[in-house]
Amino acid sequence: MNDLTEIKKIIVKKPLKLDCGQEISNFPLAYETYGKLNENKDNAILVFHALTGDQFASGINPITKKDGWWKHALGPGKAFDTEKFFVISANVIGGCMGSYGPSTINEITNKPLGTDFPVITINDMVNAQYNLLDFFKIETLFAVAGGSMGGMQVLQFVSNFPYKAKVAVPIACTSSHSAQNIALNELGRQSIMADINWQNGSYREREKSPDKGLAVARMAAHITYLSKKGLQEKFGRKLQERDDLKFSFDADFQIESYLRHQGAAFVDRFDANSYLYITRAMDYFDLTKKFDGNLSKAFANSKTKFFVISFTSDWLYPTSESRDIVIALNAIGANVGFVEIKSDKGHDSFLLDVPDFLGTLKNYLSSTYKK
Amino acid sequence: MNDLTEIKKIIVKKPLKLDCGQEISNFPLAYETYGKLNENKDNAILVFHALTGDQFASGINPITKKDGWWKHALGPGKAFDTEKFFVISANVIGGCMGSYGPSTINEITNKPLGTDFPVITINDMVNAQYNLLDFFKIETLFAVAGGSMGGMQVLQFVSNFPYKAKVAVPIACTSSHSAQNIALNELGRQSIMADINWQNGSYREREKSPDKGLAVARMAAHITYLSKKGLQEKFGRKLQERDDLKFSFDADFQIESYLRHQGAAFVDRFDANSYLYITRAMDYFDLTKKFDGNLSKAFANSKTKFFVISFTSDWLYPTSESRDIVIALNAIGANVGFVEIKSDKGHDSFLLDVPDFLGTLKNYLSSTYKK
Repeated sequence: MNDLTEIKKIIVKKPLKLDCGQEISNFPLAYETYGKLNENKDNAILVFHALTGDQFASGINPITKKDGWWKHALGPGKAFDTEKFFVISANVIGGCMGSYGPSTINEITNKPLGTDFPVITINDMVNAQYNLLDFFKIETLFAVAGGSMGGMQVLQFVSNFPYKAKVAVPIACTSSHSAQNIALNELGRQSIMADINWQNGSYREREKSPDKGLAVARMAAHITYLSKKGLQEKFGRKLQERDDLKFSFDADFQIESYLRHQGAAFVDRFDANSYLYITRAMDYFDLTKKFDGNLSKAFANSKTKFFVISFTSDWLYPTSESRDIVIALNAIGANVGFVEIKSDKGHDSFLLDVPDFLGTLKNYLSSTYKK
Repeated sequence: MNDLTEIKKIIVKKPLKLDCGQEISNFPLAYETYGKLNENKDNAILVFHALTGDQFASGINPITKKDGWWKHALGPGKAFDTEKFFVISANVIGGCMGSYGPSTINEITNKPLGTDFPVITINDMVNAQYNLLDFFKIETLFAVAGGSMGGMQVLQFVSNFPYKAKVAVPIACTSSHSAQNIALNELGRQSIMADINWQNGSYREREKSPDKGLAVARMAAHITYLSKKGLQEKFGRKLQERDDLKFSFDADFQIESYLRHQGAAFVDRFDANSYLYITRAMDYFDLTKKFDGNLSKAFANSKTKFFVISFTSDWLYPTSESRDIVIALNAIGANVGFVEIKSDKGHDSFLLDVPDFLGTLKNYLSSTYKK
């Protein structure tokens, strides 16, 4: 993996009791910020990343040299307008971009933790990131926002800390991982664990990593991020640099070549064990569990304004699951707005240049901030 | 693999020119029959199996000891009523239940063909099976029928042999494999080829087979056979023989355990190379290709009565793709019926006990046979 030494980190000294029962302390939490915190400290937004994201939400990621994952939404004049807002973005615990995770070196053995890392939850991720409020001495965030697993963190944050964010924007997410969601994540995990190089997670002590298994996991996930219609319009049955079928197992079709590329590029930037841990956290996510299956109770004390966003062609976290959140919020008279954005780009819409989404988000944030 | 010596086979002596250019002859085609061919020889139905099916459509499969794949539809008094019809079912070439395929032994080298087997197409499969009409001395079939890849074979058969079937029943299928379909199949292939035991397809000469890769491929496919709603109703977030989450990578959820079982059971009965070849044939399927993109032309000379069936919750081959077939048939004034069956069971509905489907199919076949 890459050299992560120059990444910004806080060391969380305060003990954190994880859902699994284990207590951690003195652990690193890598973060990045965009824009400036104003004097009143009322312009801070905490954004949460999705499964394979990291703290580099905007600009060029110094490790991968690629654009940040929320480049369309975050920057000067954009929805998360860095001329107006101070945006904090952290790498989740369990991740592989500097925060405490399975690739963290165990200082005693001098080996990566691997599967000695504890199984974590979305709740643990959010509780770890809460420490950034203390670090920046922020009493109340203007907003928390995120898409996909980032949206789950938004919901968990507001449930855990009902007075700590004025606005919450959960995007393309769910309050409870469905059987299909779990099935798709399990598929990815099985693919990684089927790779002979995985070696029960201790591959970092060896020469080889489970790249093939991780690439297949990424291919599987990538298919779920796109809509059937979007795939058809972009790729259809177009051939890859050939006039006709080659009658072989090479990539005849552009979609095959595209997926192979997605898989190969992913293993350069992501750790297989992190993939296992983070998908596990997503599958464990069920915000209603602590509240007898009643989602409304998860937000009982919240004064937060909610703005729930979904996308028409997202079949991974379909609009119906966002609507369940809205219904639960309405049931307790919460301040909630809801918009379903028309897009053929599937679940990935929240990361892409979807003008209706970006414009709606920008309008909501800027008008709510003024009030 | 199992001993296939007692399986019924014809040896096709007549040369068959494959789409890839290669010519094959003297190849085995394994088949099974149900019911009796009547004197007029007007009661024969040729059914085509799907990706992982075989010739054992009904009764107990003597190799796997499991029920045949179309047990709900085929038998005395059922839709394919064996008291009335003579049903022929063949293992596709490329398959692994006795027909010519990658596990066929090359008599010169005494090794399985592996990837020396040619890349085949749905057209090749259908042309190979046409030899069964000669074998049984059947001039005209009463019907051809099949679901999923079986439905593709139905469409191809009628296009190739416009006067050879009175009735055609393509179920839960498409006339052209979509980008998403290709993507999902490519995922399965990459999973198999990522398994270190695949060894470029020569694993049968060695001790180990690519079972892990094939199991992951099966898991991926299995998810696509079920609907999101069906999965949620059947599994939801139910735990597997435990009171609470175990904070590990074991199968906490029933859906995980179920998928692992599906994967593990599959490798006992199916050959990894066959999986590669058959998915490739599906991806190559585009009935419009030879006809300048005009599907109607594929059926221009057909006198066949069509009965197209789709299922509401099938997202792999959604109703819209069946509707495209119906529109193309209507455009040439073909005799075509179409029904979309309401079912939460997803693509697999055509294999399951879905009374509306089975009843509709039975009524259609029996009433059409009388006329």
